[in-house]
Amino acid sequence: MGSSSNGGVPPGFRFHPTDEELLQYYLKKKVSFQKFDMEVIREVDLNKMEPWELQERCRIGSTPQNEWYFFSHKDRKYPTGSRTNRATNAGFWKATGRDKCIRSTYRKIGMRKTLVFYRGRAPHGQKTDWIMHEYRLEDGDDLQGNHSVNGSPL
Amino acid sequence: MGSSSNGGVPPGFRFHPTDEELLQYYLKKKVSFQKFDMEVIREVDLNKMEPWELQERCRIGSTPQNEWYFFSHKDRKYPTGSRTNRATNAGFWKATGRDKCIRSTYRKIGMRKTLVFYRGRAPHGQKTDWIMHEYRLEDGDDLQGNHSVNGSPL
Repeated sequence: MGSSSNGGVPPGFRFHPTDEELLQYYLKKKVSFQKFDMEVIREVDLNKMEPWELQERCRIGSTPQNEWYFFSHKDRKYPTGSRTNRATNAGFWKATGRDKCIRSTYRKIGMRKTLVFYRGRAPHGQKTDWIMHEYRLEDGDDLQGNHSVNGSPL
Repeated sequence: MGSSSNGGVPPGFRFHPTDEELLQYYLKKKVSFQKFDMEVIREVDLNKMEPWELQERCRIGSTPQNEWYFFSHKDRKYPTGSRTNRATNAGFWKATGRDKCIRSTYRKIGMRKTLVFYRGRAPHGQKTDWIMHEYRLEDGDDLQGNHSVNGSPL
């Protein structure tokens, strides 16, 4: 339990960002190619990672986590279209419910989409407990997403 | 929401230490006069501070808190005795329940005492919602305590 147990942050600190912090600080900095003092949120390729593989890759220090944070580029389903390819080897992410509007002192700063992971291939597939939140900036180009996955292996 | 909004820790981090971290890292370092990289836990004189005054003094960054952490020297009730003076101007702290044993991988490292704040003077006084946890190290000299107060003004 040294001072580096949390990835450079003193012991006792846990990463529990608000939606506003994720958008205003982390995603905004990321899409404008600014440097972070500390690499808290890792980059991953969501099409090449299964949800249960993210735990190891996105670990922050030695604290047990049930949420993982990452940046990922969106992959288009078709070169000319705008639909996103959200398939992995083992399954696919499917949106659920309505996107949530994220505000900062009444100003809309972005949106949060909720997705569920299914094993198998669409339109079939077996629903799992893995949940992902995908954040996008209001004024942003659509190429970067900041995700948080919350779930447990079935 | 700059990078200093949490007292030097990047945005999104909250101070939620475990009992083990408080004892093994913070209190141990404090009683051995080691320097902290970052002053997360402030020193206060508990006999001179009412619980509702601790909020301002023990704030970490700009995040809303309902727990505050601090170090305080124990004040003896009588110069020759071992009883602790836990009175303030407005009231006093009174122990409640049994002390809890804190372990680190099965080894006992310290104890946690729970106290409640009463307005007025003992043995009378009016119970409040303010709760304090007082930590002491197992092998420690008894002169330093590491406290956390959790409550709301009545």
